[in-house]
Parts: sequence; structure tokens; C-alpha cells
Amino acid sequence: MEVYLDNSATTCLCSHAVEKMTFIMNNVYGNPSSLHSKGMEAENEIKFARKIIAELLGVNNGEVYFTSGGTEANNLAVFGAAHAKNKLGNKIVTTAVEHSSVYESCKALETEGFEVVYLKPDLYGNITETQLREAIDDKTILVSVMFVNNETGAVLPVDKISKIIKKNKSPALFHCDAVQAFGKIPVKPRKINCDLLTVTAHKIHGPKGVGALYIKEKTNIKPILHGGEQQKKIRPGTEPVILIGGFGAAAADMGNISQNYKKVSELHDYAIKTLTGIEGIVLNSSEQNFPYIINLSALGIKSETMLHFLEDKGIYLSSGSACAKGKKSHVLTAMGLPTERIDSALRISFSKNSSKEEVDLLSQALCEGLNTLVRKARK
Amino acid sequence: MEVYLDNSATTCLCSHAVEKMTFIMNNVYGNPSSLHSKGMEAENEIKFARKIIAELLGVNNGEVYFTSGGTEANNLAVFGAAHAKNKLGNKIVTTAVEHSSVYESCKALETEGFEVVYLKPDLYGNITETQLREAIDDKTILVSVMFVNNETGAVLPVDKISKIIKKNKSPALFHCDAVQAFGKIPVKPRKINCDLLTVTAHKIHGPKGVGALYIKEKTNIKPILHGGEQQKKIRPGTEPVILIGGFGAAAADMGNISQNYKKVSELHDYAIKTLTGIEGIVLNSSEQNFPYIINLSALGIKSETMLHFLEDKGIYLSSGSACAKGKKSHVLTAMGLPTERIDSALRISFSKNSSKEEVDLLSQALCEGLNTLVRKARK
Repeated sequence: MEVYLDNSATTCLCSHAVEKMTFIMNNVYGNPSSLHSKGMEAENEIKFARKIIAELLGVNNGEVYFTSGGTEANNLAVFGAAHAKNKLGNKIVTTAVEHSSVYESCKALETEGFEVVYLKPDLYGNITETQLREAIDDKTILVSVMFVNNETGAVLPVDKISKIIKKNKSPALFHCDAVQAFGKIPVKPRKINCDLLTVTAHKIHGPKGVGALYIKEKTNIKPILHGGEQQKKIRPGTEPVILIGGFGAAAADMGNISQNYKKVSELHDYAIKTLTGIEGIVLNSSEQNFPYIINLSALGIKSETMLHFLEDKGIYLSSGSACAKGKKSHVLTAMGLPTERIDSALRISFSKNSSKEEVDLLSQALCEGLNTLVRKARK
Repeated sequence: MEVYLDNSATTCLCSHAVEKMTFIMNNVYGNPSSLHSKGMEAENEIKFARKIIAELLGVNNGEVYFTSGGTEANNLAVFGAAHAKNKLGNKIVTTAVEHSSVYESCKALETEGFEVVYLKPDLYGNITETQLREAIDDKTILVSVMFVNNETGAVLPVDKISKIIKKNKSPALFHCDAVQAFGKIPVKPRKINCDLLTVTAHKIHGPKGVGALYIKEKTNIKPILHGGEQQKKIRPGTEPVILIGGFGAAAADMGNISQNYKKVSELHDYAIKTLTGIEGIVLNSSEQNFPYIINLSALGIKSETMLHFLEDKGIYLSSGSACAKGKKSHVLTAMGLPTERIDSALRISFSKNSSKEEVDLLSQALCEGLNTLVRKARK
């Protein structure tokens, strides 16, 4: 039996997405910008998908812009906002635990002269409302804070930010990277009251290579890409019709979010109980965090070694963000974890389809791994 | 019978691409950056596709970077080169007939303080070697010239540029947008001696939403997107594995380029002979141009009106670049064509699968269209 518990890295395609993409591949080939009916057919597929995603987010269709994925959507939000607002201030407030596509974009903006405040998390990866209140001021033009952290499952206080921005008389646009949250907890831009929000398809059983940025109506941001008339010139380029169709289909197929959440919460609690019962396992994430993600360390065994051991048994996890390709986690580092814990970190990430049986197999394999590998290391 | 002669806008998927994409959709779901075997399987699909494309271009695998399409590849080349080289000068040489993704990028660079020279074409859309020789100087840091124009089929003298850059002691990087040429004539970056070259999948019967930028080894350009470790950080973001697989499959399935060229040349000559025999039809492109594209005007009838008339008969053409979504062509305008010719322009674009029968149906329909619509207009 294959145990795939790396769903925060990416998910397998759901059958609904496969069906839709197969249909488009075989029947719809026009350029969505072409004015003839072949183009219209393609454009209709895009409209259909956009409507599904907009409805899920509770926003207007015209506020959803497709991108090549979460990375591009985050870059468009961060650079787009900073470059549109730079006459009103030069301060950006973000956190030290953002995904690299926000984090590295902010680093790049520093070289352009922007001042960036990276709020530090506590030992469980949490950021507090107080930290945000103290950092956001009237020179702050962008606040970019993720909804759920991709390595620890920490849920950040994104629902407090809009009020702080208002209270502190900040001209900031508020961007929320909701890549890990979307499809797992309700993600409603109007409720968070953010101006920009990122989602992506491949974390919700859609295809890799397509994401979307919600841009609140009348919000002015600068495009990153320049070219044709597509997507109001905010994101030009011929749209990836097949992927967008798959994104829409996956979004329509997420099922009952709160039921899934309940199921995964039970699984999470079961996993925490089972796994922390193993000698040598310590939790890096808080038990109170988002249930879809657990971060722990198998003390004394390098992540890579344990991952290989588990893989031999058909169990797939990761040491952290896939995008880091095995490089040291900037998130766990920011949390101030000791090096030994960081070097032995493992991320378990569930999908709505994950099962207790999978957790049991993982638990058994981790026990074996600790016994075998620690013994080996001691020789 | 459906007559699709809008292949420069986009093409239908070839069966080889459909097969490959179907295989990946159903069997390969890992994140290519994941270190476990699920990730490796996905990474292998990318490597496989990259190798095919690199071999066709006659370059190293490591010189091919996947993007979300031609628009992003052109933006990456133009901004990436300009921002990497801005200490050596601030002049950019390009043409007034580039695709909007190069043209608008250059316009954006002007607002950053770059001086951009847009070389003007002659009445057939051609640019001469002399124009290039006079424009490129020791302050020029980027030359961006397309291989084949997407509206007129004009073939630009890209094989002369590298020598001019050297002779005129220019520090310029040379970018070539080869989107329309790739798969139809040999496109060999080493032969043209360019530093950067753009290709895309959906013009060669691959999927929309994926392209590639050739970046010559040791060429330093600045990325547009910031994030993870993918593609040496030149183009971070989780790769669209399905689309990349489809791109590779389509590239492997192009058949014999010179045989296709010969076949389409004959078709082109036949079409020119047939269509220019119709009263009211005037050629906008030169008979000597690239055979895959013919640009003509049906005098007295607005492009849109004629396109609708043809569409009713199952014939699909365009008025120019799909990306312009029906806006006035900047290419034909730069060529200095009278407004009447621009407003009535039609682009016919062949694929290797186009047939004489299709040309005959088009010719017949154009005749009818001219008779019916001109008569209507006169009433």
C-alpha cells in the first residue's frame, strides 16, 4: 500500500479534474482571445472555471485573475502592490514564515529600497495580533501575511489585519497567501477584508501550473508581465485553458469543507497521539494548529535519511516545503528551533482522503526507522 | 467541413501530446521538487521534455527554462536582460513589429528610463540589416528581434545581428522571439548566435500555457519571479508537469520540418494565386514571406464582418494577433498601410496539416463574402 502524506507539497488529480481536462484536450483547442467561436469555446471554459472559484471565494468573477500558480500570484501581489503604492510610503510588513515566493519577493524589494519588517514567530510558528499592531504604521504600503503556514500548519491572525490597517491609518494593501488554506477552511476575501489573495490548484487535487489571484475591485496594482489584452492586461498571455478547466473542476469537487475538516481533525488528533507516543519523536507544530499539517522531528536522524527509509516502505513525506528542494527550512529557523530539530524535521500533510490506516503504517515505519537508524548511527 | 486557418493564433493538440498528457494526468502526480520517488517521476517527465526541446534547438538541456508561455518567456528575456545589463548602457534596439509581449515590455522599460529604438518595417513588414547596423551601438545592452512576424510572416534578418553587435562593440544581449518560427524552419540558437530565444508549445500542436526560454550558458539575466529553488531560481514555481510533458511530446511529433515546409510552401503559392485572383483582395504580406502566414485585405469590408461571414461557413481566420483581441494591429500600422487596408485585414495561417481543399473553400467563401457584403455596404 502506498501512503502519500505529502499533500501540502502537491496532491493527485481528482477524477473530476481529469475528466474536464480530458474533455478540453480532445474538444476545445481555440485561443480564448480569438474572436471566432473556437475562441469563444475556450473562453467559455475559462469563464466557467472562474465562476466556480469566484463563488467559492464569495467574490465577483471579475476579481479572479488566473496565473501560472501560487508563486506567480504571490509575486504579482507583492511586487504589484509595492510598485503601485510606492508614492505613499516604502514600508512592507510581512512575516519570517511566509512561503519563499512572498519571502524572496520581499527580499528583492529590499534591494529596491523598500524597508521590510519580517515578523518573527514564536516556537510554534505563530504570529500575534500585537506584533502586527506594533509593526503596521502610516508608512506601510503592503501587508502580506499567509493564512496557514505550509510547514507548521500555524494559522495566522489574518482576520485582524484589516482593522489594524484602518486603525493605524496605514495606506497599505493587504495580501493574504491562502494557498494552504483554500479548500480546507473557508477562505472569504470579503470576510478577511483583504485586497489581494492567492490560491492555487495543485493543493486541492487540481493540476500544477495554475493559480489565481483575487484582486479586489478598483484595487490598482502594477502587472509583472506585459503583453496582450488578456485578463485586463493585469496578467497578459494566452491562458492555459486545460489547466484552468482542471482548476475549476477540482474546486467544484472539494466536497463539504467543514465535514472534511472534521474528519481530518480527528485524523490529526489520532496521529498526534500515536506519533508522539513514539520515543524519539517530538512535535514542532502545535497541537492546536491547522489539522492538515503536522511537523515533527525524529531526533538523531537526519530528515533525508528517514525520508529514504520511509520511502522504501512506500511512505511519502517531506522535510518541509517542496520548493526548498531540501534546503534548510527558513520557517523552522525563524521559530528558533535548535539545529538538531530542524535537521531531523518531517512534515506530514493530509488530504481529505487520508486515513487512519495510513497513519498506522507511518507510525509503525517511524518506530522501525528510529530503532534501525539510531542503532546504525550509534555504531 | 471545418476549415481552421488560424494556426498562428493557436493549434489543436496533436495525438502524441494528448497521449502524454493523459498518461501524466493519470500516473504522475508528485511535485517535481519533492525529494522522494513521486517527485522524481515528475522531474523525469520534465527532464524528458527538456531534452527533446534542447535537442531540436541544438542546445544543452541546462539552457532550456520552462515558462508559462511565450509572453512570460519574452518578458523574462527583455526585463531580465535589461535589468542585468543596465550598468553598461541604457539603449535597447527592437522593432515596431514585435509581438505585444516584447513591444509592451519595451514600452514599460522606457518608463524606467531606458531608451528604446523601434525599427520601422517597410511596406511588407521587413526590417533590413542596414537599419540594425545603424541602430546598434556601444550603449546598446539589448537587441530583441523576432524571427518571423506573427501577422505578416516577414522573416527578419536575425542571422546578421550577432555580427553587428560584435562589430559595433555593443555589450548587448541578443534575444530572438522564435515563437512563430519554431517547428516550421530550423531554429538553432547556436547558429543565430543569440543569447536568449523564446519558443512556445501551443503553436506546434502542444498545450497552451507553457513555453521555454533558451538562455545561453553563463548568460546572466535577472529573474522576474522570486521564490523557490526551481530552475536554478531563474524561474521558480512548481512546474506545470502535464503541460511540459505535452510540450515535449508535441516537439517530438513535429515530423520532418523541411518536408512540411515544402508542402506548406506549395500550399502558400497556390493560395496566393487563388486568393489574389479574387477582385477586391489585396495582399498585405509579401509573396516572398514565410509560407505559413498570409495577410490580405478584403477591401471595403471590415475584418470583423468578414470573419463572421466566414465563420458561418465553418471557416476560422483572424484579423491579426489573437492577443490583441481585435484591437487595431500595431504591426500593420507600423508598416504604414492605409487605414482601409488595416481595418479589412485578414490573416490566414497554415499548419503542416492544412490542405488545398481548405484553401478552395476559403477562396469560394471570400468571393461570396465580397459579393454579398460589398453589395450590402453599398445599399
